[in-house]
Amino acid sequence: MNPKAMFNISYGLYVLTANLDGKDNGCIINTVTQVTSDPNQISIAVNKLNHTRDMIAASKKFTASIISQNADFELFKRFGFQSGKNVDKFAGFTAAQRGANEAMIINEGTNAYIAGWVTQEIDLGTHSLFIARVTDMDVLNDTPAATYSYYHQNIKPKPQAPAPSKSGKTIWRCKICGYEYEGDELPADFICPLCKHPASDFERVN
Amino acid sequence: MNPKAMFNISYGLYVLTANLDGKDNGCIINTVTQVTSDPNQISIAVNKLNHTRDMIAASKKFTASIISQNADFELFKRFGFQSGKNVDKFAGFTAAQRGANEAMIINEGTNAYIAGWVTQEIDLGTHSLFIARVTDMDVLNDTPAATYSYYHQNIKPKPQAPAPSKSGKTIWRCKICGYEYEGDELPADFICPLCKHPASDFERVN
Repeated sequence: MNPKAMFNISYGLYVLTANLDGKDNGCIINTVTQVTSDPNQISIAVNKLNHTRDMIAASKKFTASIISQNADFELFKRFGFQSGKNVDKFAGFTAAQRGANEAMIINEGTNAYIAGWVTQEIDLGTHSLFIARVTDMDVLNDTPAATYSYYHQNIKPKPQAPAPSKSGKTIWRCKICGYEYEGDELPADFICPLCKHPASDFERVN
Repeated sequence: MNPKAMFNISYGLYVLTANLDGKDNGCIINTVTQVTSDPNQISIAVNKLNHTRDMIAASKKFTASIISQNADFELFKRFGFQSGKNVDKFAGFTAAQRGANEAMIINEGTNAYIAGWVTQEIDLGTHSLFIARVTDMDVLNDTPAATYSYYHQNIKPKPQAPAPSKSGKTIWRCKICGYEYEGDELPADFICPLCKHPASDFERVN
């Protein structure tokens, strides 16, 4: 088995938002799929480590704002590389408006949004798969969507030469967000504390 | 609600194959998603009108070959625009090899394959959503994957000017495969007989 085959699957990128008890939160996902068109239903897979997942499980509502090629890395840092458990990701953020389902719609660096009402939650172990009826959706502009591949080639900052490790240890860098782990071996069950990706998404940089 | 928001979701394209009782079949889908990485699990949504869906439901096994930018339109016509119920899609087709799970791997116009063993089938009305453990996968070459957007811009033949309708009636063309329907009104519940897409994927051409 060559797990790199998985990297050839194409994805878009989405800011997934939820509102629970008046609190807003959001995270970045790549797993939005239209699964039927009559009626319109979508599926989303969300890591259980994401606070947004808990809020969707409780509220049964979410909005996926589709990230466009106009997005900058700050959008990914804000929603992808910190946790809503200890940070208000919407603090000082003005590029959003409240949708009919109470979840926020991101309106800069995005080209459309799709609001969903959860009809099924399927437990997949590390992730929840939500099936949802579409309750609202609109196109915001005609900028092309950013694929995951586009993000890696054009939005994510190019890696810089690693700073020499003071301890002389090996540095492992997350290919998704750039987080660096220092240690001779990267534990096989390591999860990136910033973006929640597994050890298989890290590369040795020195 | 503006259903065009759905068109901004990014997808790859896949030849989905199955083998049942010694018979091979395959269809084209755009709905492969990695839903967990520990263990590797993928989800696929397949229209119930597709014979391949029935074969997967019965055999619990399938292979998704990831279509690359080297694919030509013939691959889509062979697997997407005819039904395995009345045609042997593998007749005279040499660009394939049998995988460990008995389903065929397409090895031209593709860049990787992922074989799955179905652990759950979720009924979504018009479609089945299969959750599968990955049993085998490999990279075939480094040609980039063809996104759905790439298919529309580069692989699908450009539409020609419609032939005048002999009956003077309106022509509606499927934006996915080019099938033409003649009639003053396209029925709202019309399903493309070639590619199984709904009336919302047709456009008026005269």
